[in-house]
Amino acid sequence: MLGVGLIGGSIGLAARRRADAQVCGYDPDERVRAKALELGAIDRAAGDIAEAVRDADIVFVATPVGALAETVLAALAAAPAECVVSDVGSTKRVLADAGTDERFIGGHPLAGAETQGVEHAREDLFDGAVWYLTPIDSTAGVSYERLHRLLTAIGARPTAIDAETHDRLLASVSHLPHVLANLLAAQAASTLGDAAQARVPAVGPSFRDATRVAGANSAIWTDIYMSNRDALVAAIDEFSAQLDDVRGKLEAADAQAITAWNETAREKRESLLGAGPSGEPVAELRASVPNRPGVVADIALALGRAGVNILDMALAPSEDNRQGVVALFLDGEQDAARAEQLVAELGFPVARA
Amino acid sequence: MLGVGLIGGSIGLAARRRADAQVCGYDPDERVRAKALELGAIDRAAGDIAEAVRDADIVFVATPVGALAETVLAALAAAPAECVVSDVGSTKRVLADAGTDERFIGGHPLAGAETQGVEHAREDLFDGAVWYLTPIDSTAGVSYERLHRLLTAIGARPTAIDAETHDRLLASVSHLPHVLANLLAAQAASTLGDAAQARVPAVGPSFRDATRVAGANSAIWTDIYMSNRDALVAAIDEFSAQLDDVRGKLEAADAQAITAWNETAREKRESLLGAGPSGEPVAELRASVPNRPGVVADIALALGRAGVNILDMALAPSEDNRQGVVALFLDGEQDAARAEQLVAELGFPVARA
Repeated sequence: MLGVGLIGGSIGLAARRRADAQVCGYDPDERVRAKALELGAIDRAAGDIAEAVRDADIVFVATPVGALAETVLAALAAAPAECVVSDVGSTKRVLADAGTDERFIGGHPLAGAETQGVEHAREDLFDGAVWYLTPIDSTAGVSYERLHRLLTAIGARPTAIDAETHDRLLASVSHLPHVLANLLAAQAASTLGDAAQARVPAVGPSFRDATRVAGANSAIWTDIYMSNRDALVAAIDEFSAQLDDVRGKLEAADAQAITAWNETAREKRESLLGAGPSGEPVAELRASVPNRPGVVADIALALGRAGVNILDMALAPSEDNRQGVVALFLDGEQDAARAEQLVAELGFPVARA
Repeated sequence: MLGVGLIGGSIGLAARRRADAQVCGYDPDERVRAKALELGAIDRAAGDIAEAVRDADIVFVATPVGALAETVLAALAAAPAECVVSDVGSTKRVLADAGTDERFIGGHPLAGAETQGVEHAREDLFDGAVWYLTPIDSTAGVSYERLHRLLTAIGARPTAIDAETHDRLLASVSHLPHVLANLLAAQAASTLGDAAQARVPAVGPSFRDATRVAGANSAIWTDIYMSNRDALVAAIDEFSAQLDDVRGKLEAADAQAITAWNETAREKRESLLGAGPSGEPVAELRASVPNRPGVVADIALALGRAGVNILDMALAPSEDNRQGVVALFLDGEQDAARAEQLVAELGFPVARA
């Protein structure tokens, strides 16, 4: 564990308690290391990166975004040949250089943001949370399987996605909402400033929610904005065009168009938040695949693109190590059928177990 | 009570239980009237508006925004000479016509929005909530006092504001956030639609919060957008300009400017949400005022503009009814001192009780 803050500490707690893992942690801040030990987030504190990763099966880099790339490269330089190195950064294209090492798989858990620091670490922080992974062609199947298994063990839902789509998606569902919250807070303050010289009156609950993330920790967010600024600018442009469109409907006093626009937004939000566990029994698929890098990444990405959640996976290489079987565990009949079709389309023999 | 939905029903419940009031309610929907009786939101159901307001001391008009103006006028036509008529609409300038009747005081509680219908009515819906009132020059002091007293009895914090400032304020802190939430939901759905053909993956908590109000009930919100569209368009224009400014900082990769902007947003949000009860003892002021319409409105508006909350008020006319004393109860020393200064500036003799 490199960087033992809220995220790193929570991975440590969960991995120790739920996956029976031995966790060695390094943080540049000595007090943070001591606190992490005291709280049980790590078994052992290391004095530097090389010591921390020396005997690791999996390394998580959980530093602020600005320090990610160099820390990942340092970890890869010191980590064993069979080790998996992953990170938890909010943008994924910044690690394109690291990504060419077959031991590296980019990651990003959608969890935790309001508090920082190992003192807020929680074993259950990732329960049910999507954890994006960005495997590429060079990614070793066994690495992906090992990482996937640990993440499901600590409660997360690993979901494969390519780095560019990830960053575009996060620009829309996270970075842009943060920008809008900041602007709303500033605008309301200036409107209220005109109205109330001495002190501001209370504001409504919708404003409280809409600005909950306003002014999020700059130490984290300036790096995030900077590292994803091209995708964020594109998202802002799209948003501005839509805002201008609504403005036109309002100016035209077109109540019917406003109603239609509002109803569409309701449907879209419901469809976005609607997808959850099916409640059906877990279904198992088995696919025969050649034992080469990239195969598992291809399968995971194809299912991720289709919104099919891989609950668990297991790799079983054949004796001559040239072929293998990937077992995929899926959430119910519909996902299993879709996954079967997608794996077949990739050219691999596949069947229900 | 004209209109017995979430708001009207909650006023009824609270007024009956906390202010020992007799509540007669009318709703165009007969089933709603029956439900309101069954739930104890009203003592008696009326068959029409005139019957409902015939013996009322205070009438609340709690219909959707689109029906407000006509219902308020119908209530004023049928209500007794000493009655106070108020409403709970989200925009206040629409009632400018009704406002010239000295019995009318516009109102708007900042509470309740996520559910509708009398079946969700709650006695405590207004606890601690700001309840904007828009008295004008013609407003009778006794009317304002009576309304203020009932609102504090049901747990709200009545705050005087002029109608135009109210609508501009609500455009910034409520209507614009709803527009942005709608746009965010639509944009995320289109981004995710490209990424995931079959079904969308889960999105993060910041998105969930930022879009909580997306697609709010069109039956209510189309009227709100329409009735405040000039203020909302102005708020959109200001917002667009600020969004464009941030876009420029991102394009220029100006990390320092982004950090400064983010820190400012944090401070603004904290100042907006910071104001709460002082915890100090209640202070009482007494002002001597001429017994004519508009005096109490002037005092309430001056204090409202300064963000000074009137916890309670009491009017005591002199025997010849030409002069009177207004007692104002205030939240702690600082508010009392500010109120004393403001009342003195209006030209009224004022002292601590």
